[in-house]
Amino acid sequence: MQSFPMINGVLLDISGVLLDGDAVVPGAVVSVERLRFAGLPVRFLTNTTRQSKRKLVDQLRSCGIDAGVDEVFAPAAAACAFLAESGYAPHLLVHPALEEDFADCSRDGPTAVVIGDAGEAFTYQRMNSAFRALREGAPLLALARNRFFKDRDGGLSLDAGPFVEALEYAAGTRALLFGKPAAEFFVAAAGSMGSDLSATAMVGDDAESDVAGALSAAIGTGILVRTGKYRDGDENHVTPKPSLVVKDIGAASDFILQSRGS
Amino acid sequence: MQSFPMINGVLLDISGVLLDGDAVVPGAVVSVERLRFAGLPVRFLTNTTRQSKRKLVDQLRSCGIDAGVDEVFAPAAAACAFLAESGYAPHLLVHPALEEDFADCSRDGPTAVVIGDAGEAFTYQRMNSAFRALREGAPLLALARNRFFKDRDGGLSLDAGPFVEALEYAAGTRALLFGKPAAEFFVAAAGSMGSDLSATAMVGDDAESDVAGALSAAIGTGILVRTGKYRDGDENHVTPKPSLVVKDIGAASDFILQSRGS
Repeated sequence: MQSFPMINGVLLDISGVLLDGDAVVPGAVVSVERLRFAGLPVRFLTNTTRQSKRKLVDQLRSCGIDAGVDEVFAPAAAACAFLAESGYAPHLLVHPALEEDFADCSRDGPTAVVIGDAGEAFTYQRMNSAFRALREGAPLLALARNRFFKDRDGGLSLDAGPFVEALEYAAGTRALLFGKPAAEFFVAAAGSMGSDLSATAMVGDDAESDVAGALSAAIGTGILVRTGKYRDGDENHVTPKPSLVVKDIGAASDFILQSRGS
Repeated sequence: MQSFPMINGVLLDISGVLLDGDAVVPGAVVSVERLRFAGLPVRFLTNTTRQSKRKLVDQLRSCGIDAGVDEVFAPAAAACAFLAESGYAPHLLVHPALEEDFADCSRDGPTAVVIGDAGEAFTYQRMNSAFRALREGAPLLALARNRFFKDRDGGLSLDAGPFVEALEYAAGTRALLFGKPAAEFFVAAAGSMGSDLSATAMVGDDAESDVAGALSAAIGTGILVRTGKYRDGDENHVTPKPSLVVKDIGAASDFILQSRGS
């Protein structure tokens, strides 16, 4: 029988694990409560860039998940920190609802293109304007490079990744990634819990970005749930493979608590 | 001194070689006339998919370049032939002005996504609709995969290629290409002149798609002109390298005629 390390900290993807569109995934609220009751620190990680961090925290709370602002990790904050350190001003190709997360960024200095899941704001004109900035030497900062997400109509819809690829190909450049599966993103979230990477678990519905990404960043346990965007066999198309694949967040929590003998 | 083969047939890219936006490139009209006067068959190749073939021929003629309909090679016709042979009905993600070139295609049968340079018709909704068709198993047919073109404002603008890459990445598929640099495209055009590939010259402003593409398809001579989208040093970033790099279509014609002792 495969042995698993004891888990001392838990990273939870939001979309597809805790939330399904605007609704809460059955069992999510009680699962988070059980993890917290067992004394486990929890962090919420998302690559969703169609809303501000403020709205995201509000949404979790309105669903009954009590998330602290400092417990939520979203790529915009990491990109803002990079912009401040490096002296770049952002050229934003992001969803209008995310723009407030860049309100404090400098307006002066050389330009860096920041791309997120802009949704219907991915117009040809805005893509072209970003391309021209890249041609003039701006670096490309990607908040995510996910291929697709589970949309409100139940179907899969294009995420930021395809548009990142488009600009990379057009301008002959490579984006600097801030969200999952960037190792720094997982490491920062685990570090904020004081949890060793090897004793940390990541729970996600994206076999590639959430689970293989976490394991590649030396997170000890990567759990794939069969909710959200998950489709049969997703785990067969990624390397490394998930530590385990379970039905949903409830089953993931059961496993994590069992690893502690709780 | 490098020796060049004698040239018996000439393939001319249109945008950036003969036309610059709506204007004719200086020397283009007389260059085509000199080639024809020397008895050289000429074909016009384009990856431009923002207008129908009918409009393209009209535009050449209005500029004083007498092009026959059968002398113009555009990717839509090649894609239509493939659709007819394979029994697919097109799901069009193309510029509205190109749609008439698909008017005779079947509306029945399984779907194939056909993507060209749709320009401002590249909306998120249309990209997403194409993505969902690909997820359901439709093949992806690309009329071109050029990175950018020289736009009417003089700047470079996104061509079809970045959007092809986006859909390939999202759906985990690879497009079947119909325009340059597909070898079949060059071979069909050369074949229509009865010109051996080795005795054929291709003249283009795109180092990658026009010139390296033609040479990779066994076209004997690939001539890069420094007009249109050409930027200093483009020839250093492609393999194989152009046979020669010249100022414009006039200089290219001089060279071709000299190769024949004309």
